[in-house]
Amino acid sequence: MRTLPTLLVLDAEPPPRLGRLTGHARIVHTDAAGLAERLPRADALLVWDFTSHAVREAWPGQGARPAWVHTASAGVDHLMCPELAASDTVVTNARGIFDQPIAEYVAALVLTVAKDLPRTLELQRERVWRHREGRRVAGTRACVVGSGPIGRAIVRTLKALGVTTALVGRVPRTGVYGPADLDRLVSRADWVIAAAPLTEQTYGMFDTRRFGVMQPSAFFVNVGRGQLVDEDALAHALAHRWIAGAALDVFTTEPLPEDSPLWGLPGLIVSPHMSGDTVGWRDELGVQFVELYERWAAGRSLVNVVDKKRGYVPGH
Amino acid sequence: MRTLPTLLVLDAEPPPRLGRLTGHARIVHTDAAGLAERLPRADALLVWDFTSHAVREAWPGQGARPAWVHTASAGVDHLMCPELAASDTVVTNARGIFDQPIAEYVAALVLTVAKDLPRTLELQRERVWRHREGRRVAGTRACVVGSGPIGRAIVRTLKALGVTTALVGRVPRTGVYGPADLDRLVSRADWVIAAAPLTEQTYGMFDTRRFGVMQPSAFFVNVGRGQLVDEDALAHALAHRWIAGAALDVFTTEPLPEDSPLWGLPGLIVSPHMSGDTVGWRDELGVQFVELYERWAAGRSLVNVVDKKRGYVPGH
Repeated sequence: MRTLPTLLVLDAEPPPRLGRLTGHARIVHTDAAGLAERLPRADALLVWDFTSHAVREAWPGQGARPAWVHTASAGVDHLMCPELAASDTVVTNARGIFDQPIAEYVAALVLTVAKDLPRTLELQRERVWRHREGRRVAGTRACVVGSGPIGRAIVRTLKALGVTTALVGRVPRTGVYGPADLDRLVSRADWVIAAAPLTEQTYGMFDTRRFGVMQPSAFFVNVGRGQLVDEDALAHALAHRWIAGAALDVFTTEPLPEDSPLWGLPGLIVSPHMSGDTVGWRDELGVQFVELYERWAAGRSLVNVVDKKRGYVPGH
Repeated sequence: MRTLPTLLVLDAEPPPRLGRLTGHARIVHTDAAGLAERLPRADALLVWDFTSHAVREAWPGQGARPAWVHTASAGVDHLMCPELAASDTVVTNARGIFDQPIAEYVAALVLTVAKDLPRTLELQRERVWRHREGRRVAGTRACVVGSGPIGRAIVRTLKALGVTTALVGRVPRTGVYGPADLDRLVSRADWVIAAAPLTEQTYGMFDTRRFGVMQPSAFFVNVGRGQLVDEDALAHALAHRWIAGAALDVFTTEPLPEDSPLWGLPGLIVSPHMSGDTVGWRDELGVQFVELYERWAAGRSLVNVVDKKRGYVPGH
């Protein structure tokens, strides 16, 4: 009888759908504290608790290591470390699950702001009937930073609403501008959308200088990773009306501490890292992992394989 | 020298763009109180103050009357009366100006509700980080009631977001369901959108019975006219969770009185009749009227001519 592969699962609550792996895997659950001890004996690791940085801290520099790590997230910044990057361990991600939900979330923000709905809700609480003029979204311009599946879904959705879009990625190619065009595009945009992976190149890319080239009427949205943004620079830009407003779904520190000044910053919408998470998302992530596991266990090639040097799944 | 036509303008503030009519019209401004006296001497009437019911009340039953009445609104319910309907006066409306803005406004509401943004704004005020799951808008179903240009624009915009739509009008035709299908379509819809003109047929069409057939998860939006909805029935439906929520942009009484219970109804978003009004809308309405005036003064046929029996501009 052949030995079952050991699947180590880093979770806070058990992932759904893993029942399908009964008879195909020896499943061992762990929390962050037990990870370092169990990693050397695992054949595969499922990082279900994608808020944890435990993998990065526990990853063995040498010796036995899982041959495959899957994270139930689009970003891999929370687990990547030089030792993992240098190893021959394959890393996969949840590419595809979050694209359409995040695109809809961005569209929701864009339309909500254009139609002044937050102010409408405030005035309703005060029982004040005050007519205001909204803005037409069709004909406005968006600059979407991050040319992966999420950024491309955002572009598709905004285009469907009549928005003129420019997509910016690490490497210029058909339909994608490169970093050299970023400032020019940002300076003409009504909506600047950050949807890039967190890498050395993107860390802090939205800083004082970049907010400084935006239009005073511009609205900034971050649905990527908190560290794409210099939060102090954003606060300064909002306070001095360099830009009209912003919405952050991701933060340098999550959950955002209760005493963070960002909660009360005029012009800023704060949401709790939920842009990609729609009813049924945990099931979708579970199904996606089970399908990947079946490929892996059968010796077939994996999909959604992360380029560990770049920090994301390279694509079109 | 030919006599200039007298253009009577019912307004609270002067419309923009009428300067172009200098030398082509003798423009007389009036408020509601002066309307009855001036109507018999006017060749044309511009109803700029479209919140006023003064035309209906002042329209002469016989004798001299303007040959043409234009209202700077999509709906004509506020000015129609049997005497006007029976006369040979031509009535035109602002068809086209509000279509795209209202469609975007409806999309803003749909996305905002699906992504639970109102709750996000509340939690932000309380500095509470509470992750929630949104809903995917793509794949949901909408029933749009009102098959004029506004209803059709709503359908186009929701379709672009991946929503399955059904359009309901007075007469079934290609792409439009008739009243006989209304209950069936409403009972299957995630989003029920009222965008019909106010006519005898549509008055109070959203009543206790109709809210009763909606799904408990359904969200109702009214961007048509307040009188399409039995407001007490809606309040009852919300209080008893017959439906999940609603947004009203129009009301039986506008402005909505400060003591109206609708302001504080859980699950209801109240906005001040602004869905169609985007920056520049007054200019657009002014330009549209001037173009119509030039056609009329030149003896050319008018466009946007209202079927006075039906109460709207018949179309495709």
